[in-house]
Amino acid sequence: MRQVAIFGIGQTPIREHWDLSVRDLAVAAGRAAMADAGIEKVDAIYVGNMTGGSLNRQRQLGTLVADHLGQLHAEAVKMEAACGSAGSAFRQGIAAVGSGDCEAVLAIGVEKMTEAGGKEVTAALAEAADAEYEVIHGVTFVGLNALIMRRYMHEYGYQHDDFAPFALNAHANGAKNPNALFRKAISRKEYERGRIVADPISLFDASPIGDGAAAILLVPAEKAPQAVRVVGSASSIDTLAIHDRQDPLWLEAAEISANKAYQQAGVGPEDIDLFEAHDAFSIIAALSLEACGFAERGRGVRLAQENGIMPDGRIPISTMGGLKARGHPVGATGLYQLAEAALQLRGEAGDAQIDGARIALAQNIGGSGATVVTHIMQKP
Amino acid sequence: MRQVAIFGIGQTPIREHWDLSVRDLAVAAGRAAMADAGIEKVDAIYVGNMTGGSLNRQRQLGTLVADHLGQLHAEAVKMEAACGSAGSAFRQGIAAVGSGDCEAVLAIGVEKMTEAGGKEVTAALAEAADAEYEVIHGVTFVGLNALIMRRYMHEYGYQHDDFAPFALNAHANGAKNPNALFRKAISRKEYERGRIVADPISLFDASPIGDGAAAILLVPAEKAPQAVRVVGSASSIDTLAIHDRQDPLWLEAAEISANKAYQQAGVGPEDIDLFEAHDAFSIIAALSLEACGFAERGRGVRLAQENGIMPDGRIPISTMGGLKARGHPVGATGLYQLAEAALQLRGEAGDAQIDGARIALAQNIGGSGATVVTHIMQKP
Repeated sequence: MRQVAIFGIGQTPIREHWDLSVRDLAVAAGRAAMADAGIEKVDAIYVGNMTGGSLNRQRQLGTLVADHLGQLHAEAVKMEAACGSAGSAFRQGIAAVGSGDCEAVLAIGVEKMTEAGGKEVTAALAEAADAEYEVIHGVTFVGLNALIMRRYMHEYGYQHDDFAPFALNAHANGAKNPNALFRKAISRKEYERGRIVADPISLFDASPIGDGAAAILLVPAEKAPQAVRVVGSASSIDTLAIHDRQDPLWLEAAEISANKAYQQAGVGPEDIDLFEAHDAFSIIAALSLEACGFAERGRGVRLAQENGIMPDGRIPISTMGGLKARGHPVGATGLYQLAEAALQLRGEAGDAQIDGARIALAQNIGGSGATVVTHIMQKP
Repeated sequence: MRQVAIFGIGQTPIREHWDLSVRDLAVAAGRAAMADAGIEKVDAIYVGNMTGGSLNRQRQLGTLVADHLGQLHAEAVKMEAACGSAGSAFRQGIAAVGSGDCEAVLAIGVEKMTEAGGKEVTAALAEAADAEYEVIHGVTFVGLNALIMRRYMHEYGYQHDDFAPFALNAHANGAKNPNALFRKAISRKEYERGRIVADPISLFDASPIGDGAAAILLVPAEKAPQAVRVVGSASSIDTLAIHDRQDPLWLEAAEISANKAYQQAGVGPEDIDLFEAHDAFSIIAALSLEACGFAERGRGVRLAQENGIMPDGRIPISTMGGLKARGHPVGATGLYQLAEAALQLRGEAGDAQIDGARIALAQNIGGSGATVVTHIMQKP
């Protein structure tokens, strides 16, 4: 496989975009990435999207978006792995360029959720879990994660408020990102007063949905010597249903895909300058830190308490707000993570810039650790 | 790219499977393909599915199916391109094995539709069209194809009953396929009396939905010298909305992807022994024959009238019933087509066997020619 470079980056702000359809959002991000790269024709377009069928009544988004980007006769398809959809689309792009099959590929993640009602969105998100063995019992997606968080607190002796640093860091960083949905830092008191969504998960432990699209244009590295390189790319699954896991407090697929990516890149956790973690919930951020080798088992929260995850900490996470403050348009998130990590490595992260960032990790998760796609990027 | 071989084939009958869920169907077909190949572990699983979110409230099917096939820690993802989903999943498998990234890959197409109500299914199928510019006007998916058929009749001077050979051939062939939904030949009189669904499309011009799954296990050709080879693989898009096409009577994406596949295989239409066409509607079968070079423009119906598409004709199509009689579980169809073509090349097509078949073409279409995936297979 030849090396692949991130040559164009585009994103829309994450908002309630009442005036833009799912097509408009994807086309805006795709156009921005193409303009950034100065490339007008691509060989293939992979679109990551989760709820387009249920919430927007629109399928075949790969073709629709390619069509409206003026890419007739290209190859196009939509990939879906719940909240891991965009990471999967990007990984597909890496494979297409890496194998020599394509010279320029666009990976786009898009989601348009805020026009639907709350119940409809909750039902659509629950489709990420096991319909026959989990959802049938009435458990929502946040409910499943609440069970995991409660168990973690019990097992390792944490209190709810010990998780505060995840929200504080994310919101402080989101305030520096003009594309973030929430652009205001929060106080510890605000965190402690957060309304409970599914005990023990409060509003500040859960990421908000939103409308948005992010896109990356990929080319062979030899054609873009100055561009950020993708040096590791791996994907792994775990059981979809949480109750089928031997240890529900260990994200095995995250560990496996991270280790594969580390091996490909020839680096380890100690070499990573920033980590765009899939902080859909505080508990998942903690478990991701452990699975990717930044903290011992049960010590992810401790690492956060010791300021390890802040911009000047040992391993800065959610550097532009993460899912928590940038917002979580589910099927688009993986490409927001990758776009933000690449901007950091370009030195174009503005007020959110991590000084001297050279190697970044981005991990996109579908379900509660069921599908995990990990990428490592490096400054040339 | 190294050559890829079809090493395992599995399928469920297409029925109203009231006792099997979408997971059960996919797992049954996947298991059958793995047993056929004698392989128990694969590197990746690509699942093609269209309506799982809307009709089964289950997403992340790639991971769910891989999990229940015992393939923990493999890579898995779902691909969706409406009725072109399974062809796209297969093509992804070809890329993964062809590039050297994987040694064994499972491509599975699955759809579970018959538990939902008719209105719900009609709405789900309409998601293959353009929600904002076609469906908003109240047009259904069959309605769009009726407009194309009417225009074709007007332009080339055909009557409705001229399309009879497509249905007669498909049902006669379906009668020989134990996995087909309809296993009874029909008479010309029955065709002529067919109830109108969307004028001029009658019941016998439209394929029936169904529940089913088909799977193929792919390995490098050097590891399976006796297995059927995939010698051409290409995908192309056209505009999603029909009204955006310069010529709504020409399937440009079908022509382009077929020509790419012919070129890769080093063959032409004259070398093809059988063609598993995407006969979702009689009119699409006719247009596919023209786009793939088997008939001149406007002569696809004429070719059928001259017995050109029958098992002993110039280019046998729908050899095991096609979408029309085997049934059309939308996101699974592409893999049924490929599985049937491969069985023909193995000489394992039973009563439906085309004598001396050496090279087969299979073309899977999403929307009305919007996403077209073409494969050419060859007997070793």
